[in-house]
Amino acid sequence: MKDHMERMPYQATLAAAAYEPIAALPVCALLDNVRSMYNVGAFFRTADAVGLDKLYLTGITACPPKSGLRKTALGAEETVAWEHGWDPLAFADRLREAGCELAAIETSVHSVDLFDWRPRFPVCVVFGHEVDGIRPELVARCDTHVRIPMLGRKHSLNVATAGGVVLYELLRKYRRLIERAS
Amino acid sequence: MKDHMERMPYQATLAAAAYEPIAALPVCALLDNVRSMYNVGAFFRTADAVGLDKLYLTGITACPPKSGLRKTALGAEETVAWEHGWDPLAFADRLREAGCELAAIETSVHSVDLFDWRPRFPVCVVFGHEVDGIRPELVARCDTHVRIPMLGRKHSLNVATAGGVVLYELLRKYRRLIERAS
Repeated sequence: MKDHMERMPYQATLAAAAYEPIAALPVCALLDNVRSMYNVGAFFRTADAVGLDKLYLTGITACPPKSGLRKTALGAEETVAWEHGWDPLAFADRLREAGCELAAIETSVHSVDLFDWRPRFPVCVVFGHEVDGIRPELVARCDTHVRIPMLGRKHSLNVATAGGVVLYELLRKYRRLIERAS
Repeated sequence: MKDHMERMPYQATLAAAAYEPIAALPVCALLDNVRSMYNVGAFFRTADAVGLDKLYLTGITACPPKSGLRKTALGAEETVAWEHGWDPLAFADRLREAGCELAAIETSVHSVDLFDWRPRFPVCVVFGHEVDGIRPELVARCDTHVRIPMLGRKHSLNVATAGGVVLYELLRKYRRLIERAS
């Protein structure tokens, strides 16, 4: 996706202005036991793109410096704030005390649909292991359970792709909130 | 993201019902010269999840069967319709004749913001090479140039993540359109 010259200056001005009031997106993400460091690296890249507040990396989730992670983060591991700890519950409790809504991202049909969800910012979105999902004690600590709609037959997404979908939807929702308030 | 039991049956019913009128999402994607077959595989998985109409794979973009692709597609290469051809322009012309809006996804500041874009369904979204972007002759064939907003310092996303963000935003827009029409 390379820059190229296109003549839509009016729309460009509009679009850029829309994000000016967003000094910082009041969203962080907790990645617990994410197995693949390529996924963690891609998450860093997305975190940079949406202006994420912080990445919390817990359990076996890889953290910088790691060459496999750098391969997909492409430098974003140096621009995004992150913290590592073994225990996700300690972070979850600390974030709740700081006023965050803790939202588990999962595929349960009993969760609220991502597009219907009305987050209460600040928000921390929680992602888990690629195969086993979020561990039950961490799921139990969350305030909200959010489901990415699945229309196909496989009912799963790559965790880094899921991260992109959720974080950009939060950016969209937050931008709309700011626009309505102004 | 494993299934788990959560007690929100009301919201679950609402969410499931919201997608019932969407028999098929009138969106396809053209991946031209996507270098990494892991990215192509992840794209297949996302395509299955959103109910994409078809994937067009052109130039050097890998197509099934390939073990690297299968590794990230996880079976979605068997559920998603796809077609391979060397020339992306032939597909672009064919899709335009079929009434598709052709939308190039790129990072140019002159493009319309993804969230402000009002697509005219059916839509074909066009993605290009991870480093070089979409080739100029293909960009020139597109009706619309759509930009994923970038708030960070790196100004780029993994192409499979970008695919997830764009395809899910199209699913959200299409669902809203259907809801308003009913």
